[in-house]
Amino acid sequence: MIIRFTVAWAAPVVKIAAGLQCGMPRVSQEHRDKRRRQILDAATLCFARKGFHATSMPDIFAEVGLSSGAVYGYFRSKQAIIEALLDSAMRPVLAALHDAAEVEPPLRVPEIIDVIHREMATVLDTDEATSLIVQFWAESIRVPQIRDSQRHDVIQLHDALLTLLGRLQPGRRVSSDSAWALIALGLGTFISQTVLRTNSLPTATLVDQLRVVLSEPE
Amino acid sequence: MIIRFTVAWAAPVVKIAAGLQCGMPRVSQEHRDKRRRQILDAATLCFARKGFHATSMPDIFAEVGLSSGAVYGYFRSKQAIIEALLDSAMRPVLAALHDAAEVEPPLRVPEIIDVIHREMATVLDTDEATSLIVQFWAESIRVPQIRDSQRHDVIQLHDALLTLLGRLQPGRRVSSDSAWALIALGLGTFISQTVLRTNSLPTATLVDQLRVVLSEPE
Repeated sequence: MIIRFTVAWAAPVVKIAAGLQCGMPRVSQEHRDKRRRQILDAATLCFARKGFHATSMPDIFAEVGLSSGAVYGYFRSKQAIIEALLDSAMRPVLAALHDAAEVEPPLRVPEIIDVIHREMATVLDTDEATSLIVQFWAESIRVPQIRDSQRHDVIQLHDALLTLLGRLQPGRRVSSDSAWALIALGLGTFISQTVLRTNSLPTATLVDQLRVVLSEPE
Repeated sequence: MIIRFTVAWAAPVVKIAAGLQCGMPRVSQEHRDKRRRQILDAATLCFARKGFHATSMPDIFAEVGLSSGAVYGYFRSKQAIIEALLDSAMRPVLAALHDAAEVEPPLRVPEIIDVIHREMATVLDTDEATSLIVQFWAESIRVPQIRDSQRHDVIQLHDALLTLLGRLQPGRRVSSDSAWALIALGLGTFISQTVLRTNSLPTATLVDQLRVVLSEPE
């Protein structure tokens, strides 16, 4: 998230200058999006450096180099920043799964998990961002608002996966539980590969091995 | 962890009193174990309350009500406390898996995952403790010492699982990758059920569903 911002930074300045020249000094949506992203990146750095509890809104103002008023124009609270960070991690994953539902032939299970991983890796492009998402999982145990926000995202993920699984088994009624099982496998793969980094098996190998393990004789 | 301590707290005081009566004022191993546990429980509360970064050793001295010298007699640093917390979460799991390797008939995959869950639930008996373990996963991304400590534990878990899987498939060479696949599934089940709490399917159902998902026609 942090690296991406530094590349995209110069664009809105040019836009505003162009707007001023033709007598329209309004702040463009693009500029607002970039500024919003800038605040989220600064918050990510603060949370990663000081931890979630110890980071205050003034820490974030200082890191991003904006006044309190400017930041509050985008986010009403630290909680709102956290929710936006969670959302910005999940939204591209959901969009990609939505697109995948149109692909022919239907994506197979390892390919579905790879789509999730690829999109998460694009958003979580720094160790700080990856660490932060896992910290939020930890927080969700104790903070009801974070739990509710994450639950909302996970239910959307569940529904998208159910659609994809339905395409793999045409004519059969796919159980909702199948999508929960796939979420467990996807989360576990993410933790074991990206967070703990204890092994680096391709998803296809991991899924093949799991198939062997689960097909042990009754 | 916290609740357990409050129950066990009174015991060592009685022991020491008994020792003094018969002229042996030495601190027993049992007393040392209890005191050590008391420090770890206080650290868990501090980490859960202030976050990992913002917690200092003096915070822990204050929480446990002991002098710095008393605490340093057990742990040389915050890092050492973290390693002990990770170890205390993993040790009962490894012991249970070791015991499970003697059971006849061999444990099946859902039963193996249930053993892991049961032992983790016993150690992580408060939301604070559960949250903390996940926080440590997040920390391991950025702190090499935590990563090394967790990697050591996960490799021991891998080897224990490989032994159990070998018993399920006698005569066949079990791939090391199978144990990694089972770790991914176990971690994902833990995150989805205990941390995010998005569903509460029994492990057997989850595993059955995954078997269906993975057995889709080639």
